[in-house]
Amino acid sequence: MATQGQVITCKAAVAYEPNKPLVIEDVQVAPPQAGEVRIKIFFTALCHTDAYTWSGKDPEGLFPCILGHEAAGIVESVGEGVTEVQPGDHVIPCYQAECRECKFCKSGKTNLCGKVRAATGAGVMMNDRKSRFSINGKPIYHFMGTSTFSQFTVVHDVSVAKIDPQAPLDKVSLLGCGVPTGLGAVWNTAKVEPGAIVAIFGLGTVGLAVAEGAKSAGASRIIGVDIDSKRFDVAKNFGVTEFVNPKDYDKPIQQVLVDVTDGGVDYSFECIGNVSVMRAALECCHKGWGTSVIIGVAASGQEISTRPFQLVTGRVWKGTAFGGFKSRSQVPWLVDKYMYV
Amino acid sequence: MATQGQVITCKAAVAYEPNKPLVIEDVQVAPPQAGEVRIKIFFTALCHTDAYTWSGKDPEGLFPCILGHEAAGIVESVGEGVTEVQPGDHVIPCYQAECRECKFCKSGKTNLCGKVRAATGAGVMMNDRKSRFSINGKPIYHFMGTSTFSQFTVVHDVSVAKIDPQAPLDKVSLLGCGVPTGLGAVWNTAKVEPGAIVAIFGLGTVGLAVAEGAKSAGASRIIGVDIDSKRFDVAKNFGVTEFVNPKDYDKPIQQVLVDVTDGGVDYSFECIGNVSVMRAALECCHKGWGTSVIIGVAASGQEISTRPFQLVTGRVWKGTAFGGFKSRSQVPWLVDKYMYV
Ligand SMILES: NC(=O)c1ccc[n+]([C@@H]2O[C@H](COP(=O)([O-])OP(=O)(O)OC[C@H]3O[C@@H](n4cnc5c(N)ncnc54)[C@H](O)[C@@H]3O)[C@@H](O)[C@H]2O)c1
Ligand SMILES: NC(=O)c1ccc[n+]([C@@H]2O[C@H](COP(=O)([O-])OP(=O)(O)OC[C@H]3O[C@@H](n4cnc5c(N)ncnc54)[C@H](O)[C@@H]3O)[C@@H](O)[C@H]2O)c1
Ligand SMILES: [Zn+2]
Ligand SMILES: [Zn+2]
Ligand SMILES: [Zn+2]
Ligand SMILES: [Zn+2]
Repeated sequence: MATQGQVITCKAAVAYEPNKPLVIEDVQVAPPQAGEVRIKIFFTALCHTDAYTWSGKDPEGLFPCILGHEAAGIVESVGEGVTEVQPGDHVIPCYQAECRECKFCKSGKTNLCGKVRAATGAGVMMNDRKSRFSINGKPIYHFMGTSTFSQFTVVHDVSVAKIDPQAPLDKVSLLGCGVPTGLGAVWNTAKVEPGAIVAIFGLGTVGLAVAEGAKSAGASRIIGVDIDSKRFDVAKNFGVTEFVNPKDYDKPIQQVLVDVTDGGVDYSFECIGNVSVMRAALECCHKGWGTSVIIGVAASGQEISTRPFQLVTGRVWKGTAFGGFKSRSQVPWLVDKYMYV
Repeated sequence: MATQGQVITCKAAVAYEPNKPLVIEDVQVAPPQAGEVRIKIFFTALCHTDAYTWSGKDPEGLFPCILGHEAAGIVESVGEGVTEVQPGDHVIPCYQAECRECKFCKSGKTNLCGKVRAATGAGVMMNDRKSRFSINGKPIYHFMGTSTFSQFTVVHDVSVAKIDPQAPLDKVSLLGCGVPTGLGAVWNTAKVEPGAIVAIFGLGTVGLAVAEGAKSAGASRIIGVDIDSKRFDVAKNFGVTEFVNPKDYDKPIQQVLVDVTDGGVDYSFECIGNVSVMRAALECCHKGWGTSVIIGVAASGQEISTRPFQLVTGRVWKGTAFGGFKSRSQVPWLVDKYMYV
């Protein structure tokens, strides 16, 4: 393309300070360096985690920055040594990288790649520990290695999933975070089996994706828990079979669930980010085998707790990041599944 | 036997009050009722859990009682309907029952049988909700459904493991609690694989059994952690390859372990009953996959805690009771393994 190797000036939503409105600015986006990819973003969604960092509650949040991590676009240009994508490829930028070479990627036990983490955590690119975004020479930090609230962004090549060019970018942009997180929590982390009883705490995007995953896994009962009863109507469409609003009960919600399930659920998912709810989600699990998966991201400094007896009597406490999916390998598969299955 | 159907008077160590010396008394042991077995105890060991209840810290402790749950003996007589053992059989009384009929036993997911729990928890037998022990007509509570600190005891038939009559009862009495708990935590609960790095917190009977289990599973490094450095000499014989005394360090023990293992251990086991150590055991696990198993029984009211981020980034928190072994089915197998493998 004509822009290759050149600085691109485009529009981006810049977060200058926590909790202050984003400002649409003209930003300069430097060309990709070795191992980097510059992407034209066509669609981006807004996830809870963007709002969390924006709110100032994330102690690792850096400002000014360009937020956004749930998007889809087309490769504009690539830096030296990039072999797996080329200009024109349709892609989803992935905040969870996959290098296929580090201890994590090679373990066969996790999707948490370690390769670019130190750089993305510091809001810069690995190559020169600098940002590719600037406004009149003043650098703007990257966010989660994706920064999709910009018409163009630069990401590490290990963070780019190449997808079917037929896929509608507006729809599949959602496969950059919330939907895979929920589906994968069910399929990869909990491994819900047919007939299981499932409880979902929080029926936002992530909770609804958990419901969809649980339904496809053959769960016999999918109990949705939310303090907002209006969520039930939409949740029904995603497979939730029963609805519980904690506000309707005097007793603790874990007790309510144990009572309606004759001993507890087989699997529970926390999709809110509230540490008291995380405890309830564990404690509503069935003795002997109930497994609880934490998906929600709690405010910094907050801790979960329970009596150790809960675990000694067979409950299991887990968590998940990006639903355990390997990003570059499995996001394209999720896109195909959305389109053809 | 001549005693069948009759009350037997024998010696037992009675705990009259918390924290007061046990008193050797003549006790009357009533004959077994339907579904019960009277056992002549030949050898009994002392486990931490006996001491815990004796200390008065166990809120469910009932006094006066006869403690003891790690023993071996020979069946003296059986009650109506008991088919799986008969007088003369060599047996190990099991505090963890296995009825093969309840929801738990049939789940295929846990060893926690529910059949006699309500009765054993209340210090009585299920049939008439009464004790079989008395002194001059005054009832003495059962303990853990076993009460092996008595020359004769009465247990539910679902709590009796029939073993090879060739097995030395003094040795295999240890298969009633601590040793299976440690071995099973490794084999059944954590499923340690060859090459894994293991940390064991607390090198008492349970911790040493974990070491033995980890060694047999092919662990590459077995790191023993104890505040008593003298434990290392004996621990070496059970497979511990490295020793860490938290008292030798200023930094938190989880950090020490993460440092010496380049990121954390694959599996950790808490064999003490200390909630701060339980937290350390979780947090010394490797990001992405490290699994921590709680075996120790904490003082009542105490809670474990950690940042949920520890779980979201892939660590798993579990616990185990009797090492996940099904008592009646698997204790005889452990006896055979001890004798012939
Ligand atoms: N682990 C990961 O990889 C990952 C990925 C994406 C999002 N997340 C996290 O998942 C969480 C959910 O994200 P989302 O976008 O679905 O959020 P959301 O705000 O859309 O939905 C949250 C829902 O929880 C409900 N809720 C709030 N408090 C409640 C309570 N006390 N009891 C019951 N319901 C309650 C709300 O009514 C809402 O419906 C967030 O914490 C987000 O940061 C984690
Ligand atoms: N879950 C189960 O099924 C089950 C079964 C049996 C025993 N248990 C429990 O397992 C625990 C261990 O039993 P045991 O008989 O081996 O106990 P033990 O007293 O023989 O051994 C405990 C060891 O921990 C060490 N220790 C104490 N505090 C420590 C600390 N802060 N850091 C490091 N080391 C420390 C001691 O020096 C000792 O060597 C007990 O809590 C017991 O109740 C549980
Ligand atoms: Zn997100
Ligand atoms: Zn990697
Ligand atoms: Zn014991
Ligand atoms: Zn049972």
